Amino acid sequence: MSPLPPAHPFDDDKLREECGVFGVVGVADAANFVALGLHALQHRGQEAGGIVSHDATLGFNSARRFGYVRDNFTKASLMETLPGPIAIGHVRYSTSGSKGPTQIRDVQPFFGEFSMGGAAIAHNGNITNANALRRELIERGSIFQSSSDSECIIHLMARSLQQNIPERMKDALRRVEGAFSVVAMTRTKLIGVRDPLGVRPLVLGRVGEGWALSSETCALDIIGAEFVREIEPGEMVVITEKGVESYQPFDRKPSRFCIFEHVYFSRPDSILGGRSVYETREAIGRGLARESAVDADLVCPVPDSGTPAAIGFALESGIPFGMGIVRNQYMGRTFIEPTEQIRNMGVRLKLNVNRALIRGKRVVLVDDSVVRGTTSRKIKDMILDAGAKEVHFRIASPPTAWPCFYGVDTPERDKLLAAQMTEDEMCAHLGVDSLRFISLDGLYKAVGEAGGRDPAAPRYCDACFSGEYPVKPSDMIERGFALKAAE
Amino acid sequence: MSPLPPAHPFDDDKLREECGVFGVVGVADAANFVALGLHALQHRGQEAGGIVSHDATLGFNSARRFGYVRDNFTKASLMETLPGPIAIGHVRYSTSGSKGPTQIRDVQPFFGEFSMGGAAIAHNGNITNANALRRELIERGSIFQSSSDSECIIHLMARSLQQNIPERMKDALRRVEGAFSVVAMTRTKLIGVRDPLGVRPLVLGRVGEGWALSSETCALDIIGAEFVREIEPGEMVVITEKGVESYQPFDRKPSRFCIFEHVYFSRPDSILGGRSVYETREAIGRGLARESAVDADLVCPVPDSGTPAAIGFALESGIPFGMGIVRNQYMGRTFIEPTEQIRNMGVRLKLNVNRALIRGKRVVLVDDSVVRGTTSRKIKDMILDAGAKEVHFRIASPPTAWPCFYGVDTPERDKLLAAQMTEDEMCAHLGVDSLRFISLDGLYKAVGEAGGRDPAAPRYCDACFSGEYPVKPSDMIERGFALKAAE
Amino acid sequence: MSPLPPAHPFDDDKLREECGVFGVVGVADAANFVALGLHALQHRGQEAGGIVSHDATLGFNSARRFGYVRDNFTKASLMETLPGPIAIGHVRYSTSGSKGPTQIRDVQPFFGEFSMGGAAIAHNGNITNANALRRELIERGSIFQSSSDSECIIHLMARSLQQNIPERMKDALRRVEGAFSVVAMTRTKLIGVRDPLGVRPLVLGRVGEGWALSSETCALDIIGAEFVREIEPGEMVVITEKGVESYQPFDRKPSRFCIFEHVYFSRPDSILGGRSVYETREAIGRGLARESAVDADLVCPVPDSGTPAAIGFALESGIPFGMGIVRNQYMGRTFIEPTEQIRNMGVRLKLNVNRALIRGKRVVLVDDSVVRGTTSRKIKDMILDAGAKEVHFRIASPPTAWPCFYGVDTPERDKLLAAQMTEDEMCAHLGVDSLRFISLDGLYKAVGEAGGRDPAAPRYCDACFSGEYPVKPSDMIERGFALKAAE
Amino acid sequence: MSPLPPAHPFDDDKLREECGVFGVVGVADAANFVALGLHALQHRGQEAGGIVSHDATLGFNSARRFGYVRDNFTKASLMETLPGPIAIGHVRYSTSGSKGPTQIRDVQPFFGEFSMGGAAIAHNGNITNANALRRELIERGSIFQSSSDSECIIHLMARSLQQNIPERMKDALRRVEGAFSVVAMTRTKLIGVRDPLGVRPLVLGRVGEGWALSSETCALDIIGAEFVREIEPGEMVVITEKGVESYQPFDRKPSRFCIFEHVYFSRPDSILGGRSVYETREAIGRGLARESAVDADLVCPVPDSGTPAAIGFALESGIPFGMGIVRNQYMGRTFIEPTEQIRNMGVRLKLNVNRALIRGKRVVLVDDSVVRGTTSRKIKDMILDAGAKEVHFRIASPPTAWPCFYGVDTPERDKLLAAQMTEDEMCAHLGVDSLRFISLDGLYKAVGEAGGRDPAAPRYCDACFSGEYPVKPSDMIERGFALKAAE
Repeated sequence: MSPLPPAHPFDDDKLREECGVFGVVGVADAANFVALGLHALQHRGQEAGGIVSHDATLGFNSARRFGYVRDNFTKASLMETLPGPIAIGHVRYSTSGSKGPTQIRDVQPFFGEFSMGGAAIAHNGNITNANALRRELIERGSIFQSSSDSECIIHLMARSLQQNIPERMKDALRRVEGAFSVVAMTRTKLIGVRDPLGVRPLVLGRVGEGWALSSETCALDIIGAEFVREIEPGEMVVITEKGVESYQPFDRKPSRFCIFEHVYFSRPDSILGGRSVYETREAIGRGLARESAVDADLVCPVPDSGTPAAIGFALESGIPFGMGIVRNQYMGRTFIEPTEQIRNMGVRLKLNVNRALIRGKRVVLVDDSVVRGTTSRKIKDMILDAGAKEVHFRIASPPTAWPCFYGVDTPERDKLLAAQMTEDEMCAHLGVDSLRFISLDGLYKAVGEAGGRDPAAPRYCDACFSGEYPVKPSDMIERGFALKAAE
Repeated sequence: MSPLPPAHPFDDDKLREECGVFGVVGVADAANFVALGLHALQHRGQEAGGIVSHDATLGFNSARRFGYVRDNFTKASLMETLPGPIAIGHVRYSTSGSKGPTQIRDVQPFFGEFSMGGAAIAHNGNITNANALRRELIERGSIFQSSSDSECIIHLMARSLQQNIPERMKDALRRVEGAFSVVAMTRTKLIGVRDPLGVRPLVLGRVGEGWALSSETCALDIIGAEFVREIEPGEMVVITEKGVESYQPFDRKPSRFCIFEHVYFSRPDSILGGRSVYETREAIGRGLARESAVDADLVCPVPDSGTPAAIGFALESGIPFGMGIVRNQYMGRTFIEPTEQIRNMGVRLKLNVNRALIRGKRVVLVDDSVVRGTTSRKIKDMILDAGAKEVHFRIASPPTAWPCFYGVDTPERDKLLAAQMTEDEMCAHLGVDSLRFISLDGLYKAVGEAGGRDPAAPRYCDACFSGEYPVKPSDMIERGFALKAAE
Repeated sequence: MSPLPPAHPFDDDKLREECGVFGVVGVADAANFVALGLHALQHRGQEAGGIVSHDATLGFNSARRFGYVRDNFTKASLMETLPGPIAIGHVRYSTSGSKGPTQIRDVQPFFGEFSMGGAAIAHNGNITNANALRRELIERGSIFQSSSDSECIIHLMARSLQQNIPERMKDALRRVEGAFSVVAMTRTKLIGVRDPLGVRPLVLGRVGEGWALSSETCALDIIGAEFVREIEPGEMVVITEKGVESYQPFDRKPSRFCIFEHVYFSRPDSILGGRSVYETREAIGRGLARESAVDADLVCPVPDSGTPAAIGFALESGIPFGMGIVRNQYMGRTFIEPTEQIRNMGVRLKLNVNRALIRGKRVVLVDDSVVRGTTSRKIKDMILDAGAKEVHFRIASPPTAWPCFYGVDTPERDKLLAAQMTEDEMCAHLGVDSLRFISLDGLYKAVGEAGGRDPAAPRYCDACFSGEYPVKPSDMIERGFALKAAE
Repeated sequence: MSPLPPAHPFDDDKLREECGVFGVVGVADAANFVALGLHALQHRGQEAGGIVSHDATLGFNSARRFGYVRDNFTKASLMETLPGPIAIGHVRYSTSGSKGPTQIRDVQPFFGEFSMGGAAIAHNGNITNANALRRELIERGSIFQSSSDSECIIHLMARSLQQNIPERMKDALRRVEGAFSVVAMTRTKLIGVRDPLGVRPLVLGRVGEGWALSSETCALDIIGAEFVREIEPGEMVVITEKGVESYQPFDRKPSRFCIFEHVYFSRPDSILGGRSVYETREAIGRGLARESAVDADLVCPVPDSGTPAAIGFALESGIPFGMGIVRNQYMGRTFIEPTEQIRNMGVRLKLNVNRALIRGKRVVLVDDSVVRGTTSRKIKDMILDAGAKEVHFRIASPPTAWPCFYGVDTPERDKLLAAQMTEDEMCAHLGVDSLRFISLDGLYKAVGEAGGRDPAAPRYCDACFSGEYPVKPSDMIERGFALKAAE
């Protein structure tokens, strides 16, 4: 996890999931399936991707590339170099390394050759004691190749005395603290593990005679796989062509799934915890309309992530829904060496206001979250320039006041608007007529907790809203991060 | 105009506008503005783009590149090579050349050095007598560098005996038949012309102390320009830093603007003929709901182009609106050397069904048009696979039964589903529970003609629906195209 | 011809031939032969290359690329796009355009579509009345696409009233002044022409059942072609699969072949005018030893071009020959964006002194020519640093005191050392113990003129030494160039 | 060391040195010096290069690139990323990995982070017990990132219990068998080591206030460094800005420097063991002329490596020297995706015969070595095609009958012509009039051993000629290589 703000100049001021993982076993040309799965998971990491496959004759092969999956892992000439019936892959957003841009050596999966054969692992999440582990491993003679926290796992495996790879993996993961959904492979086994709290998602699917592991169900759809079940928090599955074996390598704990996956990270066509993400977001919008009604003429989403909540808000409030902001489909990931003028354009490169629709109206703008607030201000300006009479922001998540240390790219705390201001101050700062966030209870209700959040035993990880970290972020504390004072 | 089907394997089965044009005069670093304008017009042409600028010291400079505007014309190192206070640009989709892929020499603007100085032109539309003109020009000693029909204009200008460039341009365009919105420049003058029928759009904007010409108003917004007015059909404007002069070089005719610009080509945040495109599309959806009501549980757009009409349909019908199909944002323009598996994926690479939302429902799918019907079938299959009980297609345009010869990329007539089948046959062919198109009258009403279409004097070019071509497509007739028999 | 100094920072201070041409007809996959021929002619132009071919089914195809032939025209994927039994090609060094770097549109062959079919031409030489021709053609409505003087030829052809291409070419070339060896093609005919003075070389070869035209014989060798004969000055040959027809389109004049081809431009394994270039250079070295003997310990060539003359000098003088300067084989054509340190390295990147061989010796350094003298000074410094006792420069050509306007890249006159200084002044400027050039008579003797140069009717073009220009350089005179005053 | 034949299709049938190393400390922007040094060492490895530097503020930085040094490490934008007063670099030819092409992770220097700080190493040579070491290290938990034998060194260092890096390096290198010249660096120390036999070269130079280590002296010249001395066999030097400390970490053994460095690997302008390589080669040619005189008209080198020996042969024999074979200067390292025709061209792409010089002559061809003999046959054919009356091969090394396992790329033994045939059989196989090699004694004499080779205690490693391996090639024996039977 990196506490650094994202580097790219047209940052859309969102939290960013840092990784997606995918694996397949038991199908011909497994790497092709992995490529498709990663394409469907691209929203979880746009910076780079990697695939490792194994073929009985040609052994392990791997490819790691910067850029979109579709620009690399769709080419026949590359995919021919990744043969075999088993493969895993990874997409990543940014680095947990301490300085500079991602280098290709930081791109997962990581691979290690052990005396009993090779293994590759791909990791979604963040290891909160990675610094301490790395120090210890270096002391004992391990040589790290990347600046990624995830590389610890493969070194811990290399040093395990166990005689097979799944056992070495258990050994390794028991030393690791933090959030992790891991997909790994040996020559014949596909392995999936979730950390004891199950912070990050991981699901199992059936594809023909084979099996798939994926961060989200939407990636099962693209390869025509049937969704079987979620991997349980704390569960390890070892999958061969013969079937799925399940293990419980960790002490049992109550689950704490990341609630922000429902709000923003996961795709609306995925299913999390048995619930449609789209419908959850629509329900958040409905709840927001109930909690914070406003008299207005138009409900307008900030595209695309605010759309389902805006639809819910419009349905609940009876205010007409309209696409008052249009998104340019030809925006890419980033700009290399942009002109000064481009640098100053910011959000206008990506969004344009549908002036005819907005003019003279009282507009409810529905967005999924407010992080630093920079984009929200620009959008408000654009809406007012277009002649809106009033602008009311409705946000489909509670105020984001704490950084995430579990695999999400968040600004440092003093860059988070909600860590610096009250709701009223934020409203004034953004210069809008009103600003309301869904309450934390309201969010819990929308994800199915009829009674709202149980403060004694919350069902989700909501640290970014509550400041209550279910796993102690030891590396960050060592670097000076201050936990919320006990009340 | 090319009667060839588009080459790329993941064709989304749409008609395609072939070009967008943009020009600016009277601002520092005009090419930067042009780049932004072209970025906003990228939907009108994704294959390549070009910019020509003029600087008093450094003369004319140009750059032509394949790919998106944002991947090329945002780089400081390129833009520095395009200095000066006047510039024009062009984005293009595909070639009107007779064979093979576009070559960089086919990318506009075209440039010619005349004895009184240089001129560059960018053309949106299609010259219907280009073959005959080209033959004549070659006979007289002109050497063509491209396979583009638009190159005729610059050669006709080179051979004009007029002593200044605007006059040479009038000479040239009087020889040309077809549809054209032209943006051109000399060392100091920005010139805009629309053909006598005004088939393709062209608008004038004011940007600071300077002026802009653009295919659509959405590109004025991105540079912060104020929309002044549309260039009139048959009008030529000659703009210097001093102001705008207007000429009427052609015989006056009743206007016949392309009605498909309202349906699909233009961006929803543009204004055409004083009407918001978004609101027109919503009105089409409302009309469709009135014309072809259906008992259903969900109105679902085929994203993204079907969305405004679907919102209109939902509002009018009272059936809930939901995003039942999710679009992958990371699809690019095309795939180089794709694997077999990718080749077979087709639309699933781009769209996924929100299974939880669709399951068990009677779904109204709203799309903007049906061209060859290939994508419609695949979408229907995906919806049924996801467990929909019924699928009702509602199309926000009349059946597309005739090719366009005025600057739109259309399949040959025998590839157009509506040219081969009745509406009932199409419904059976697509395998849906019902299929209805908006009527041509209904479409005219949605664009503001309260009385519907006047068959004696239609206000729009609707040849793709009606087969009535307002300009005789002579080149195509020479190649064997059969006009609709008189009735 | 460009009077500009060469742009690249590691200029080796030589005159530069600007082009090589090659063509083949009557063999399968002719473009492959052309690629090999151009590779063998790469010393005549390293900046860019182009090939046009014609196939009965697929028509004309062309490819133009920056960089070495071997990096582009050896790739199967490119060469497949250039099918057919007839092809021509061109390599170029730099541009005769007035400003900026070469653009791809300046790369030959040039192509024109005429009413009787297409033609492509490749030109080695320089048109001395190109400016006047271009002005006239533009006045009459031609549109130039490049900044190259050679483009005039294709426009003149387009405007000819003749009914076949060879006749149009005669028409065109009769209007052209200067030096030209042209290789051209129609769908079925390979055409070769040399200007009336035969300034630049052009030879005919037989390859299997087909024919080849080439700037030099060394390029016939690489494709296994047999050298048949030189094209005569003022001759046009029109070659089909049936045979070679010869024409004399111009008034006969005495031949004036470029004597510098013998000195430096041509490869040592080529045969010019029946003489081995290597042996001519060895003979120059022998002549130099006779004219300018010196007491020394070692004859050392400036590699690689000085080597044959150095061998000749050593053989004639009896002084031992040794490779006292070693050339780095891994130098490329140019450096993109070099560091300051690289920029300052200059010749040391390319040459290193064999210190052990040089130390304590009196060294005769044999070089082919002195242009600006900058490299000569650096080499002298390196030799002295290495401990040489004396340095005596012997130059295998007379002082280069005049620019070439016939297809060779020369510095402007005031940059030519020999135009600014006497031989003694140059010796002092270079800081060497002695400096001697071969006399112009001595050079003529080495190329076989036993009586030396006949001042009344010299057999060669030696304008760069004598200032006597056999064709008036009208464009340059118009730009202010002053001819040598009559004596 | 790889027993595989070199992969590239235009193999020039030579043994190939696999690496060059260079390091600098105590100068500003040390990486720039390293880049220049590597450029001068490019003949020792053309496939890839890498540089690591250290800066007090920015720490360690590295860059590894395929291709020539000049195409990568001359760019300001890359070199700016390699700041600091200490740097080392490496060029490599091919991989000792067991399969497939070199990957970027195989490119040195290798870097390791230890608890006392980082270190980087670059290795020229080959570790003959690398397989055994690698097995052991993996067993103990090390994770290898490359397929290179050199990576063992850094892992051995990581596991050493010593408290500083030079001591860890001694520990590591004492476990290593084979040939190695190592250049390494810590944050402040530049370290050089040669194996006890001193098989591969390594020299020390003084550059301004700083120091340089280089494989050869020619690379000291390019940066203006003064040659100080050779690193002794078995010596380790540790260099800081303060000076050079020398250690002897190994048991003393008699030196066995690679004699082939004199014959071919090193550049002619380098000094080895106090002797000019150029003069040694000339002396070999003289010896060859004495040992194997022949009545002939021309002594012609096979360029460029045969040239000094040919000059020596000509001087000794009195037969005229001539460049009868011309080398195309525009050959690059390799061809990507070549056409069939290119694939079949082989040596003709690179060499052409100077037909006029050769015709009717009895030619002595002097080459440095015969490896597989494939190129020798083609050259002989070319010479005969050009009309030579007789062809006599004279080879400036003894028959190469055994593979090298000390850092040179050699074909497997059964591909070596001299391992399969007697000298007479080779002569018949090559189809030449005579074939003679310098004797092993003659070679020793040319390198200064007046008494020739002492069979009891040879002063050089001559295993490729004698089959006597001074270090047991254990890995190769494990893979089945049979040592020469004791006689």
